[in-house]
Amino acid sequence: MNTKMEQRVELSDEIWSETCWEIGESRFDPDQAVTAGSNFMIGNGYMGYRGTFADDRADQYPALVVTDTYDNADGTWKELVTAPNGLFTLLSCRGKDILWRQGGFGEYERRLNMLRGEWSARARWDDPGILVEEERFCSYDDLHLLTSRTRITALGEVELEIATGIDGKVWSLNGNHFSSLSLEEGPDCLEASCVTGEQGYHLVLREDALLRRAGGAAIEPCETASREGALCRVFRVSLEEGQALVLEKRVVLYSSNDLRDTSRITSDAARGPLPTQEEVRQATAGGLSRAVSRSWEELREAHRNIWKDRWDSADILIGGDRVAQTLIRYNLYHNVIAAPAHADHLPLGARGLSCQAYQGAAFWDQEIFNLPMFLFTDPETARRLLVYRYRTLDGARKKARDLGYRGAFYAWVSGDTGEEICPSWFFRDVLTGRRIRNHFNDWQIHVSPDIAYTVWKYVTATGDQEFLELYGAEILFEVARFLASRVHYRPGLERYEIIRVLGPDEYHENVDNNYFTNFQAQFVCRYAVEVYDSLSTDHPRVFDDVARRIGLERGERDAWDDIARRIYIPEADHETGLIEQFQGFFELEDTRPEVIRERLLDPGEYWGWPNGIAVETQVSKQADVTQLFMLHPKACSREVIRANWEYYEPRTQHGSSLSYAVYAICAAWIGHDQEAYRYFLRSCTVDLLNTGKAVSGGTFIGGIHTAACGVAWQIVVSGFAGMYLTRSGFGFDPHLPSGWETLAFTLKRWGDSLEVTLHQRAMTVRAREDNSREITLEVGSSEVALPPGQQVAVPLR
Amino acid sequence: MNTKMEQRVELSDEIWSETCWEIGESRFDPDQAVTAGSNFMIGNGYMGYRGTFADDRADQYPALVVTDTYDNADGTWKELVTAPNGLFTLLSCRGKDILWRQGGFGEYERRLNMLRGEWSARARWDDPGILVEEERFCSYDDLHLLTSRTRITALGEVELEIATGIDGKVWSLNGNHFSSLSLEEGPDCLEASCVTGEQGYHLVLREDALLRRAGGAAIEPCETASREGALCRVFRVSLEEGQALVLEKRVVLYSSNDLRDTSRITSDAARGPLPTQEEVRQATAGGLSRAVSRSWEELREAHRNIWKDRWDSADILIGGDRVAQTLIRYNLYHNVIAAPAHADHLPLGARGLSCQAYQGAAFWDQEIFNLPMFLFTDPETARRLLVYRYRTLDGARKKARDLGYRGAFYAWVSGDTGEEICPSWFFRDVLTGRRIRNHFNDWQIHVSPDIAYTVWKYVTATGDQEFLELYGAEILFEVARFLASRVHYRPGLERYEIIRVLGPDEYHENVDNNYFTNFQAQFVCRYAVEVYDSLSTDHPRVFDDVARRIGLERGERDAWDDIARRIYIPEADHETGLIEQFQGFFELEDTRPEVIRERLLDPGEYWGWPNGIAVETQVSKQADVTQLFMLHPKACSREVIRANWEYYEPRTQHGSSLSYAVYAICAAWIGHDQEAYRYFLRSCTVDLLNTGKAVSGGTFIGGIHTAACGVAWQIVVSGFAGMYLTRSGFGFDPHLPSGWETLAFTLKRWGDSLEVTLHQRAMTVRAREDNSREITLEVGSSEVALPPGQQVAVPLR
Ligand SMILES: [Ca+2]
Ligand SMILES: [Ca+2]
Repeated sequence: MNTKMEQRVELSDEIWSETCWEIGESRFDPDQAVTAGSNFMIGNGYMGYRGTFADDRADQYPALVVTDTYDNADGTWKELVTAPNGLFTLLSCRGKDILWRQGGFGEYERRLNMLRGEWSARARWDDPGILVEEERFCSYDDLHLLTSRTRITALGEVELEIATGIDGKVWSLNGNHFSSLSLEEGPDCLEASCVTGEQGYHLVLREDALLRRAGGAAIEPCETASREGALCRVFRVSLEEGQALVLEKRVVLYSSNDLRDTSRITSDAARGPLPTQEEVRQATAGGLSRAVSRSWEELREAHRNIWKDRWDSADILIGGDRVAQTLIRYNLYHNVIAAPAHADHLPLGARGLSCQAYQGAAFWDQEIFNLPMFLFTDPETARRLLVYRYRTLDGARKKARDLGYRGAFYAWVSGDTGEEICPSWFFRDVLTGRRIRNHFNDWQIHVSPDIAYTVWKYVTATGDQEFLELYGAEILFEVARFLASRVHYRPGLERYEIIRVLGPDEYHENVDNNYFTNFQAQFVCRYAVEVYDSLSTDHPRVFDDVARRIGLERGERDAWDDIARRIYIPEADHETGLIEQFQGFFELEDTRPEVIRERLLDPGEYWGWPNGIAVETQVSKQADVTQLFMLHPKACSREVIRANWEYYEPRTQHGSSLSYAVYAICAAWIGHDQEAYRYFLRSCTVDLLNTGKAVSGGTFIGGIHTAACGVAWQIVVSGFAGMYLTRSGFGFDPHLPSGWETLAFTLKRWGDSLEVTLHQRAMTVRAREDNSREITLEVGSSEVALPPGQQVAVPLR
Repeated sequence: MNTKMEQRVELSDEIWSETCWEIGESRFDPDQAVTAGSNFMIGNGYMGYRGTFADDRADQYPALVVTDTYDNADGTWKELVTAPNGLFTLLSCRGKDILWRQGGFGEYERRLNMLRGEWSARARWDDPGILVEEERFCSYDDLHLLTSRTRITALGEVELEIATGIDGKVWSLNGNHFSSLSLEEGPDCLEASCVTGEQGYHLVLREDALLRRAGGAAIEPCETASREGALCRVFRVSLEEGQALVLEKRVVLYSSNDLRDTSRITSDAARGPLPTQEEVRQATAGGLSRAVSRSWEELREAHRNIWKDRWDSADILIGGDRVAQTLIRYNLYHNVIAAPAHADHLPLGARGLSCQAYQGAAFWDQEIFNLPMFLFTDPETARRLLVYRYRTLDGARKKARDLGYRGAFYAWVSGDTGEEICPSWFFRDVLTGRRIRNHFNDWQIHVSPDIAYTVWKYVTATGDQEFLELYGAEILFEVARFLASRVHYRPGLERYEIIRVLGPDEYHENVDNNYFTNFQAQFVCRYAVEVYDSLSTDHPRVFDDVARRIGLERGERDAWDDIARRIYIPEADHETGLIEQFQGFFELEDTRPEVIRERLLDPGEYWGWPNGIAVETQVSKQADVTQLFMLHPKACSREVIRANWEYYEPRTQHGSSLSYAVYAICAAWIGHDQEAYRYFLRSCTVDLLNTGKAVSGGTFIGGIHTAACGVAWQIVVSGFAGMYLTRSGFGFDPHLPSGWETLAFTLKRWGDSLEVTLHQRAMTVRAREDNSREITLEVGSSEVALPPGQQVAVPLR
């Protein structure tokens, strides 16, 4: 384990609060601008605003990232746009700017309050002597509202110039998205109005700024002026010692797609005509006038109330380990603000709304890493994420068709329409400068069964038959249909195979019979048959609707059944218990990441396909066989899980942030307690303690790893508490980290709630009074039925 | 077309003889030592002796390459060994060596007589004044005999020292093969006795040297002495002006395997115990005493007579084009001496016996490029080459088994046992120094159907039912069985596919549904069903024998039938006529070799898989779709052949010497006369005009491209004469090069012979008197039956 990380975890007293609801920093490190900007970000699932400073410019990577604005930057990268920065504020004194990014404060603090979704910072400058305290949040009460309040206190006599407005010099990762961007003075506001270059989307942002003396009257600006691409109102104020100013800023933002039909996405055209710029402006104007009509405290109170509700079901309480307590909240927070919980036509991006990296798009991460937390704490959001997959079925169908398959081949990188937006060419070989053709977009097929598997998981956990009938069955059937067109049958061996894939381990592209992929495919085909049979028997009209819609035939169901029965699933070796990651894996050079690292000619080399140093070795980028265990905890015996954990773990490079969690969860199950805890820490600090380069060769590679955030919930609940779904409730197989006195969380099932509390030697589970039915618990070999309002205590070995 | 080559072709008067039976050079170029050593080589299918000079040492790449001596040099390269050089002779005068390799002659000539299989050289030195004339041949009358005669004429008074014996300092391509090598004086001879390091094979070579004055008495040596690793008898002679000496050397050589059982190879052990060194020595001694008992003229006469017989059936007469006449003989000559016509357990190597390159092993070249010439001119040799494939079936079975398949998966590189001796790792990336894993050995599966296809061709052309029953059927069934285990069935598409192969074009490894491979597989499955049915019906006992031997079941025949019916064969596009080389080929970057050549960072880069510059483009190393046409001239219409020739030709880099011939043949068919002739010249001069580097980075890359030599026959007969097999004889569709007045050759069919003579506007075919049956000719739409002794003249358009 990385010693640097362990050292940093011990530094927790400095960066984490007593309440375990905050992260903070009291030293400013300009080299960590990228990381801190991500870690301290605020957001509400509609917009994300990086935790940078009010006077930061493009070089510091501030960004207001807006959902549902996918647009091509340069013909290659379709991604979300970054809107003009409406919180821009620049202080100066006697012609000299007072810049946060230059540090040199007497006193400094930046904090993120996860309980409230609020950012704050304070700094004291000595020359001139001022104390600046800013608070901000992206409102959950009005998703289009971003607002801040800044208090400036004079520590001596001081003449200040405050320029505040909208910075139009947007940092954009892959080039300019706007064919036009105008900053203008509007009626009682400033306005930025943009048109995107590819799709012609409008984006209108308005900013209202109110400056007043603390407890006193508003101050009028002297002028409106430009500050290097920022249009600002300029205030000039003289302050005596102890006097203070308060600046309230309200920023409201709408884009074209916020006004368009979301009932059926499938393509941009399917959403109907674009609203006019004037219509978008009207929406923005309406939002701003609502925001201005309420006091800043009112706005904040409404926002906080929603966060309070979220945490009611989402919070995990860890007794005896403040580091873990803070870490888990930090990660859950980022998973929440990344999720477009307001919509059912939008993806949860791999970097959320923390930046444009990964194109603001969903990967398999969404279902496998982000979604389970919602499924058991906020199932409505889980549902919406899956409905997004339904609404983007046409994109997946198109991809399948384009590649010669049937059904739904979900995009590796899925934006608004679900069409594949992963370019075929993006890596470059650092040794030769030549581009590399990777096949994430056409060979990494497991995303489709992963989504269908999650349909099963959602339906099982929620009992949401309506979802199944309206959306789930169609997703499932189309994925099964895709799989049936993608498998190959080996006549001599009388088995189905899946050829030429990438499994989760991305260093080994172009492999056959990847255990993970084949297992998921089998699971999905089996489930598809089950749903086909039950739906056609019990709900024939619903079934007929679906079948007619997609032209489903009885023979297809039989094909899925045959595939489920005869697909080749690599078996655990009778003696060693080992499962081969894919056919031929064990014949590759058996070595370790640290060994092949020595072979690098350049630290920036890609290790993977086609010709990287890991390709012909057993070194994996990330969990693969063990990844399957995470999804199917009961598919293999603990002995098999242990054998494979112990084999694959030292051969895993963890080149993906998705890897740690898998090893943490499986380690917990097999009693590798220390490793479980270490991997938990590693997974939960991927962003927080990112001490590596966040900009590489001028390319921004920062941003929040939302999958690592989302999966933190699973490490704790599925790993340490050992929770697994059963037909009639939940099972538990707890392995609490030794330092944890208690672990408590809420689980939702069929709309009901359980409150689970674990101690080292016992657990209690309470069914809420208003539960509608009995939930069965399985702990070891014992089973307990828990009726509404009842509580049960189970001793643990 | 390479202008350098065209220039050289115009130089023909200098290097080719009036008779068109010789190649020669009258200028000595030490930079061409490698190329000339190959071009002027002699051989007899048992041994090859490079056309170097008697005093050449390892640096000049002399080599006596011996069949059936496969042995590992360094753990990677199994290859034939090079024996000690028994023709070594060193002249000196007053302590100063007179070396051929230093040039400086007053007069010089080196010649190869293809009619007689004899090498000769003459040179006149002025100081001392001597004329040296040497002749040599590898005897076809006694395959173990290599002999030379050198006449040394004094042009003034001269004192000569002649050291002649055996040079033990062997040039060996991939390291030393001998664990021991001793040079000793034997009874009336010198002897080299070697033991190979891996297999422990013995190799005993004896040399007899007789020096006499011209027309006078024998001269006795003064001493036996070492000359830098060569053991020599040393003669010292004074000569007056005009006096001459004659040195006759007889070298006889046997290796262990020459005395072992060849009835069943399968593994080295299967050949029974190794003979003792003494047994090998006895064989050598016996051979030498037979050779010594005959005069040099007698030995030569016996050798010449055999060559005369060979040319009787093999020669092609071209009237009106002396360059072409010489070229065709040069190529046929090299195909003949490369062929182990004396054995039916040995391969015809890709570089023949010209050197150790390509491991002395057979590739698919053997059946597709070398064998057809024999099939129609010397069918017994064709049969023996195919029996070799039968004897190595176990190696092919082992390869199939090791890779998880059934039946016979023939080695890409096939030595004595047929086990795969192509290493998995041998290329290095010149840019990174890293080794590259190529998949010639496990993915280039077409070799198996190519061999089975040749079984069909052989049986069809010869009617050799005995061969089919004894050998052919088993090869065929095992290949069909392999294919059945190698194909994949696509349930949705109801078709078989062949996934992850290299077709003939080796730049595109790892492709699906390669047209060539799938077509060949279909052909073979269809033929296997046909043979299964006819054999089981008409020769049930023979069939039962084969079936019992290989455990064949009726269901397998049905599986082959199903595959033949439903395997996916890419079709010619209805509009363009184009056939896609493999699935997705047309989606690759459409560019040209000359364009991507500009992208090279190093001229030595490998263009192919996994990451070479051609991989993601439509640039092919060699013919692939058009290669199929060569094997199945009637499979597609002339229009389709033309469309594909015109499409693929400019996209072909000709990185393989196998490519030119295919484009020549197809060009002839479609009336691209000039291109056909140009490609004919290119193909026929691959070795002769090799002006490139023959040693690259210290690695020898020279040697005779035997496939290009063998296929010269096909360019002329299948291409220009347009000959194709029909059920009852031959068809012809002639397109003579405009400069050719006549083209005449012999064709064998069912043991009978036809003499074919083409003119520009007519052709005549004569059936020999002793033919046993009528042969039908098809020319255009007319058919003629030709009884024994009859002749027919057909006008051509
Ligand atoms: Ca205002
Ligand atoms: Ca003698």
